[in-house]
Amino acid sequence: MPSDAYDIVALKTRLGDIRTEDNPALVRQKSRDFYWYSPTLKRQLDGVNGDIVAFPTTEEEVLRVLAICGELGVPVTPRGAGTGNYGQAMPLAGGLVLDLSGLDKVLEIAPGRVRAQAGAILADIDAACRLSGQELRLHPSTYRTASIGGFIAGGSAGVGSITWGGLRDLGNIVSLRVATMEMPPRILELTGEEVQKVAHAYGTNGIILEAEMPLAGACDWIEAIVGFDDFADATAYANALGEQDAILKKLISVIAAPVPQDYFLRHRKYLPDGTHAVLVMLAPIARTAFDDFTASRGGQMLYRSDLVPAEEAKGLPPLYELTWNHTTLRALRVDPTITYLQTLYPFPNQLALIGRIHALLGEEVPAHLEFVRFDGKITCFGLPLVRFTTEERLEEIIALHEAEGIPVFNPHRYTLEEGGMKQTDAAQLAFKREADPAGLLNPGKMIAWEDPAFDFSTRRTYLFPGLERDVTREA
Amino acid sequence: MPSDAYDIVALKTRLGDIRTEDNPALVRQKSRDFYWYSPTLKRQLDGVNGDIVAFPTTEEEVLRVLAICGELGVPVTPRGAGTGNYGQAMPLAGGLVLDLSGLDKVLEIAPGRVRAQAGAILADIDAACRLSGQELRLHPSTYRTASIGGFIAGGSAGVGSITWGGLRDLGNIVSLRVATMEMPPRILELTGEEVQKVAHAYGTNGIILEAEMPLAGACDWIEAIVGFDDFADATAYANALGEQDAILKKLISVIAAPVPQDYFLRHRKYLPDGTHAVLVMLAPIARTAFDDFTASRGGQMLYRSDLVPAEEAKGLPPLYELTWNHTTLRALRVDPTITYLQTLYPFPNQLALIGRIHALLGEEVPAHLEFVRFDGKITCFGLPLVRFTTEERLEEIIALHEAEGIPVFNPHRYTLEEGGMKQTDAAQLAFKREADPAGLLNPGKMIAWEDPAFDFSTRRTYLFPGLERDVTREA
Repeated sequence: MPSDAYDIVALKTRLGDIRTEDNPALVRQKSRDFYWYSPTLKRQLDGVNGDIVAFPTTEEEVLRVLAICGELGVPVTPRGAGTGNYGQAMPLAGGLVLDLSGLDKVLEIAPGRVRAQAGAILADIDAACRLSGQELRLHPSTYRTASIGGFIAGGSAGVGSITWGGLRDLGNIVSLRVATMEMPPRILELTGEEVQKVAHAYGTNGIILEAEMPLAGACDWIEAIVGFDDFADATAYANALGEQDAILKKLISVIAAPVPQDYFLRHRKYLPDGTHAVLVMLAPIARTAFDDFTASRGGQMLYRSDLVPAEEAKGLPPLYELTWNHTTLRALRVDPTITYLQTLYPFPNQLALIGRIHALLGEEVPAHLEFVRFDGKITCFGLPLVRFTTEERLEEIIALHEAEGIPVFNPHRYTLEEGGMKQTDAAQLAFKREADPAGLLNPGKMIAWEDPAFDFSTRRTYLFPGLERDVTREA
Repeated sequence: MPSDAYDIVALKTRLGDIRTEDNPALVRQKSRDFYWYSPTLKRQLDGVNGDIVAFPTTEEEVLRVLAICGELGVPVTPRGAGTGNYGQAMPLAGGLVLDLSGLDKVLEIAPGRVRAQAGAILADIDAACRLSGQELRLHPSTYRTASIGGFIAGGSAGVGSITWGGLRDLGNIVSLRVATMEMPPRILELTGEEVQKVAHAYGTNGIILEAEMPLAGACDWIEAIVGFDDFADATAYANALGEQDAILKKLISVIAAPVPQDYFLRHRKYLPDGTHAVLVMLAPIARTAFDDFTASRGGQMLYRSDLVPAEEAKGLPPLYELTWNHTTLRALRVDPTITYLQTLYPFPNQLALIGRIHALLGEEVPAHLEFVRFDGKITCFGLPLVRFTTEERLEEIIALHEAEGIPVFNPHRYTLEEGGMKQTDAAQLAFKREADPAGLLNPGKMIAWEDPAFDFSTRRTYLFPGLERDVTREA
């Protein structure tokens, strides 16, 4: 949809006292996320820009923005803190970027649950919850900057998934308050299974206004790094630690040498050359059990936040900022040619699959595993680094994974389907038909809406026609 | 060891101001547990009696009792509240029964942990912990009467195991303070893996004085009963609910019709004839997720503690008192000919194994399953009822289970090995050699000590020679 199909000046006037911004540099900044992790997305999306950014601070303002954009036919792409890696928050068809960071209130904390506005930062929510002895079950590695709404709309799992599974698991999102883009916009409260209509839908079928999340007991997590000379020993240890039901933990990550040594700069002194690292966040009560378990498996205790002087620990980033997508980020800071994949090693063959794929791909694809509970069992996601050469080779690497039976959630695609399970999510599509009949919400991200005849089996990459606009304009 | 090998009068004198009791009726009462669940144990152990009971109220008094008994060669059988089912607390060789119910103090509650004396009642510990927003991870169905020391010395799993695994899992017991029966007795603090030396050792190799246990966040658990017309649907639902990582629960029990209808007298009005019952304790925050999950599986919501009037709920026993060993107890109260088994359905074949064994055994062995986390996976223990005819038939039923690959923790045996994994626990045996060199602690319960040459592969039942004494005396 070309930007001249609607009148930005008229839009701005209609928005009245709602804060907006059309300074090109600022609009450009607010039209971006961490899509540049992917050289493919960087090539495809570098020219993507909205026309204007709105900064509502109340639900009423959000509804007004939606009503006005609906009337004028202006696409609306919602955005939290822009910490996604799949271009989730990038306005492929231009239009209005709906920055929800002004809706940042923690509304209610009760035993077992918190209710917050979509733009509230995860660390801020947790700080508020800690006063009641509680904390969020799950958060991404971007905990200190990401919003709860963005995590739900564009994320899937993270720190805490080793105990609680992922956001897709029934019960990890209690309820969502959502605005539709009907005429006029409506507000819906979704609970139970219904939340999955809009969770991980990139804001294509509703604007998350508030989220109610379950809480766990607060814990003063101990950070540990355990070293192994042999990579298979490291993965077997991590898997077995995951299966220790009585050792409460929030994180188990495995990162193959030389990634920790090369890219975890501030932790370097704890990381002997050639040692594969298992990063663990564990409950203080499990300390002795963890020590004994680790010793029995031949793990070397390389770092422990409870054993180093407080001053020393203070100079380090939180351990979770070495994990999940932050592993890639730290590698990229040192070596900008690096990219990554997101994969799943299905239970019960996870250890064998990991061994096989990394034997096959060697130094080109250093291993990075995040252990999680998945359908009641312990297994792991992969976020391997990729020493990027060409997009063709990247596709080969993906195909090699899939040939081994390792599903890839391709982070080099900006659509829900290609970045996910490569199939239509019928519930999300049906809800989009109802909640966004004009197709104005985050256009280009849901293939099932844009091109219902698209055949996923061809392995052809979907290209959103609206993208042409920006590429042309930027050229 | 005949009772005339030591001088009870001298013993009593030596014990001085420590409270003792040698009134035969009282001694007989304190020499018993729930061994009569088993017709075999009832036959074998009905004549078992100690000679005297001591009721120490301080650690110092316990040490004095141990020193004096050690000197005089008097066997010592420790006892909590006597709620075991395997004759754990029964003094096979007579001697002194060490009743630890006077050591009942909750000593310390901190974030993530509680430290209590061995005789403290589980419900009392929990009541104290709740003031800090915490609760015990695990408890047996005898929560309101059992002691923490007895649970650790004679129990294995229970309510909470669906989330936390069992007592054998590293981390579910933080530390134990233990008195030995050396000369003089020593006090040891065991932590980490070391606690397994004395956990589930029936007090054969040390006297638990204090236990430090991990805590979970306190929860106002909702009780639910879900009904299914088809037993296989009930077990598949229970297993799948167990695998729902984000639905926090404390209990999932499956009890086949007509057991609930026939024996859960006060819940009868909620239990339609022919309906198999799944009993669930679930966190309030998971309510909607649980409703949706149950509906999607075709479960009928028969009872919900949060939906019935408070007055009505008050007239009912807690749901956990219909589960674990209380299921058997309720059946026995109605039909004294009933007994039971304890089995394990190993992952991943649990549902198929359950189907096969119950097809084979029909109405004679009504199914009762307790779902748990076991080595990181969801599976279940069986506590099937048995409509008892003869000991020979009971043995056949056990053999049929074992032939299907279903291990039986035989509750018709009073030894650690035969009631457990049918093999020597080397750590427990080594610790007994160290801590009880004269073999005075709870004699007759550890075959590895009494008869090192005993061959478990013969399937012969071990008979403790010391038992002859009581049988003779009672006859």
